This record gives sequence, structure tokens and C-alpha cells, in this order.
Amino acid sequence: MTIRRVAIIGLGLLGGSIGLAVKARGLGITTTGHDRNPQVRATAAERGLVDQVCETAAGAVAEADLVILCVPVGAMGAAASDLAPALPAHAIVSDVGSSKAAVAEALAAALPGACIIPAHPVAGTEQSGPEAGFATLFAGRWCIITPPEGCDPAALAALSDFWTALGSKVELMDAAHHDLVLAVTSHIPHLIAYTIVGTASDLEDVTQSEVIKYSAGGFRDFTRIAASDPVMWRDVFLTNRGAVLEMLGRFSEDLTALQRAIRSGDGDTLFDLFTRTRAIRRQVIEQGQDDERPDFGREHGA
Amino acid sequence: MTIRRVAIIGLGLLGGSIGLAVKARGLGITTTGHDRNPQVRATAAERGLVDQVCETAAGAVAEADLVILCVPVGAMGAAASDLAPALPAHAIVSDVGSSKAAVAEALAAALPGACIIPAHPVAGTEQSGPEAGFATLFAGRWCIITPPEGCDPAALAALSDFWTALGSKVELMDAAHHDLVLAVTSHIPHLIAYTIVGTASDLEDVTQSEVIKYSAGGFRDFTRIAASDPVMWRDVFLTNRGAVLEMLGRFSEDLTALQRAIRSGDGDTLFDLFTRTRAIRRQVIEQGQDDERPDFGREHGA
Repeated sequence: MTIRRVAIIGLGLLGGSIGLAVKARGLGITTTGHDRNPQVRATAAERGLVDQVCETAAGAVAEADLVILCVPVGAMGAAASDLAPALPAHAIVSDVGSSKAAVAEALAAALPGACIIPAHPVAGTEQSGPEAGFATLFAGRWCIITPPEGCDPAALAALSDFWTALGSKVELMDAAHHDLVLAVTSHIPHLIAYTIVGTASDLEDVTQSEVIKYSAGGFRDFTRIAASDPVMWRDVFLTNRGAVLEMLGRFSEDLTALQRAIRSGDGDTLFDLFTRTRAIRRQVIEQGQDDERPDFGREHGA
Repeated sequence: MTIRRVAIIGLGLLGGSIGLAVKARGLGITTTGHDRNPQVRATAAERGLVDQVCETAAGAVAEADLVILCVPVGAMGAAASDLAPALPAHAIVSDVGSSKAAVAEALAAALPGACIIPAHPVAGTEQSGPEAGFATLFAGRWCIITPPEGCDPAALAALSDFWTALGSKVELMDAAHHDLVLAVTSHIPHLIAYTIVGTASDLEDVTQSEVIKYSAGGFRDFTRIAASDPVMWRDVFLTNRGAVLEMLGRFSEDLTALQRAIRSGDGDTLFDLFTRTRAIRRQVIEQGQDDERPDFGREHGA
């Protein structure tokens, strides 16, 4: 099975980056795209995110071998229903959503009988919208594919090859396990970043201006994550509720233990943890999952 | 009062960066330095962090107009006692510690009668040691000076001018208020970063290898902060206990409220917070406190 035409539904950071990556890598694949927002379609056409921007989802998917839904996870079902009548029988339907069990269920309900293979490229920035995409977003990053039971092996291989061609490393995983892993590596980090930024901006005894001025002490890192797309993240938490609550429980337990150590002046417990976490950073860098330059390569001395 | 000779005690990231900044900016100030670790002294001499590396703290401070203690906050008292006998009567004693009330108390106890003006440049990276410093670390960053009651205005002006000459913006603040502000902009962010990295590496149902592979979803940001110097951060939490516990209480309340919103499927509460936090990020960037490039300017597509 060869993928010659890809339809991208939703032309924000992820959808736009897929289109740009296909073009930049000269894969010989034609891309069509649709976004329900006319302004996004106009920007997508200007930036050339896809070869052809279509007015309707049906128009975009009509001749597609692969359809990739790049909309917030809570909107997957509706987006799939919208294109259902025009979907070619042979087409693979995939997505880029950050929670996978809920998406698989929504797509299966909207597209009975279709070849559905959910996927999640673990890549992004804090920016969103059709201006935000770039061709190298997926290079060196993992793309997790969560094939459902009975998935066509040829279709799975084709989807896997597509992501590999964009520069990603592909891993197969059960949807439920994906949701647990991402709860800890992505969803809880976002939740606590959103929380601390909210806490800091609500204080009475410390002004918002002080919080911003002295943010270089660590807080500014959290503001980046907490600037991520609100609709996308609302939907992630609502669709991966079980795993998020489970991991949040563990985080809270650990935080309470540290709180107790601080209160009782137990420096050894703090020192031991802080030494252990340093080793994790080294592994993240050794495995090419972060920039090794100090401070992420931020510019100093502007 | 003119500062012509500066002694730097502790030649890690902060101490080394001060020495390099003085040299790079051609301020006509002579720097001496001491570190109790002989290997650090050797590296400092090799890198030229200060004009003269001294074998003893007493030797470094003997002719200094300004002494800056750049050691972990828990070691300030001992470092001050060590140099007390050699301290010139006219010298200003300052520091770069991240908690200020406890440091002021420790220095006052160790150096009765000395001109002590604690300070905190809100700048750093996750790296530490004599290899980590660089001349532009303080450029565009705030330095908070916490003058004690009855502080000599000429000495305060001289210290303030010194930090301005290194490229910093100076703000004066009461030590207790500093400790509250930094608890929220720096100490709690570090504590929750250390916690989530610890939580993630302790899971049984998600392997450490998975945590590292999929860290680009947000987790990797936290690993950077959680790679900060363990001794420095242990001491920060132990010396700013009251403010840290107070802010931690507020953070935990807010996190519990979000947990409830997720459990009950209250998307509006999530959406409202996530929209509000986005505005804070914009202000951090507008006020020059972070790199405006997406993802901190990290390299993509290595």
C-alpha cells in the first residue's frame, strides 16, 4: 500500500507542520487540507502549508489515501462525522491527538468500518495556529502509533513509513498504556505548570508585576508550557481523566512527603531526591530528547 | 565610595560569572577569588575566572572593597567566619544567595560590625561548578538587594552600581518580602519540578526508559530545572521554610480545585484558567524576561 495523497484536517501547529514536512522532504506526496476556520484556511494557503486548501473536509479527503485529523481531541468525533460521506473506502484514518483511547472510540463510532489507526507524534511547541508550524517539528521525535485490534498490517506499515519519512522514530503501543505514559510525561507536567502560573497570578501579597520581573528564577519555564492552546489541553484532561487522576494522586503524595521533609528540616531526603533527578536529565540529553546547551540554548545578554 | 577590588568566595556558576563579567566589561576592577575545593581553584585559574585565585579566603579578601559570598546559603555563616579575621574594616560584604532573611542573620552573626548588604541576582542555569560560568549571565536580569536597617547609603549605592555595571537591573526589597516573592517565582517551581521528575522515575507501570523517550511532551522542561545543584537547593528549602510552605499550601489548594474540575468534567474551569495563564506568558516575554522564540529557541531537527 502506497500513500500518494494525504488529507490534513485542521491546519494549526501540528497539521501545518505535517504539510510543511511532506513538502520539505520531497516525498512525492500530494497534500490537501481543510480547517473549519476560514481565516486559518487563508493563512494556510498563503504559507503553502498544503498543496491544496479545500473549502470542505469532504473536498479535502475525497481522493486521500491517508487522512490525518489534527483537531483538538474533543472535536475528533465531529470532524470524522463531517468527512465520513466522502471518505474513500481504502483510506487510512489517523490523527495526532494527545490522548488515544478516547480518540479511538470517537473515531470508531463516527466511521464504522473504516481503517482507523490513531497516532500521537510527541512533538510541539507552546505556539498554535497556522503561523506556528515548521517542517522540522517531528525530526528526531517519537511518534507513538496505537493500532487497534485487528488492524490491517499493510495499512499500519504504510502509516509507520509515513512518520518515519517525516523524520520521526515510530513506536507501537496499546492505547491504554499510551494514555498512562503520556499522563506522566506530558499531561501532569502541563497541569502543574498551568496551576503554578495561576497560583502566582492570584496572590495578594506578591504582585503580578513582581512575579513577572523575577520569573527567571524558574517560573518562566512554566509560563511557556502554560501558554499552550487552551482548547487542546482542556480536551486532553477531559478525555484522559482516569490516567491523569491516577498520576496526579502519585504526584501529590510525593509532594506531601517533600513538604514534610522541609517542615521537619530533613535535608538528607531533599538532597537524595535532588541528586537522583539530576541523573534523569543526563539521560534525556544522552537520548537526544533535549537540547544539551545550558538553559535550553536560551539567549543570554540580549 | 569606589569599588576597586572585589573578592569572590566560591567559584561556581555564580562566582565565576561575576569574575568573567567584571573582566569582559572592562570595569577596571581587580578580582580575587577563593574556593575551598582545590580542583575548583585549579579550574578557576585555568579559565581565568578571577585575576588572582587565592589559597585561602583570608588571602582573597585582605585588600577587598567588596566581598561577594557565592556559596550555598547553608554555608554562608561558615564562609563568613572563615574570612572574618582578614576582612578590611571598610569592606562591603554581600552574597548571591536565593534566600535572604536567613543569610542576613547568618552573616550578621559571623561578622559583627561589618557592612553587610545581602543581594540576589535572579539569574542562573541548571549547570554548576567552575566550568559553568559565563560573562553575560546577569545581562538584562534583575538583581534584588535587601539592605538591612541602618545600612550605609554610600555602600548601598556602590553595590547597586556594581550590579548595574554587570548589566543587571537593580531593585531594593525587604528580605522577608524577597523570600516570599522568590518562593513563588523560583523555589516552588524547583520543588514541583524535582517532585514530578522523582514521581516519574519511581513508577512501576511506566518504565524509566518510556519516561525519557517521550519526555518531549513537556516533562523534559522539568528535568532541566531538576538538574540544578542539589546542595544549593537543599539549603534554599531549609532556609526559606516558612515562605515555601505557605506558597506550597496555596499551590496544593489550586491543584486540588483543578483535580476536582477534571474529575467532574468541568471543562469551563479548565479553559478559563488555561486562557488566563497564556496572558502571563505574553507579559514575561514583553518584559524581556524570556526568549520569545518558540520552545525557548531549542534546536529542532537535529
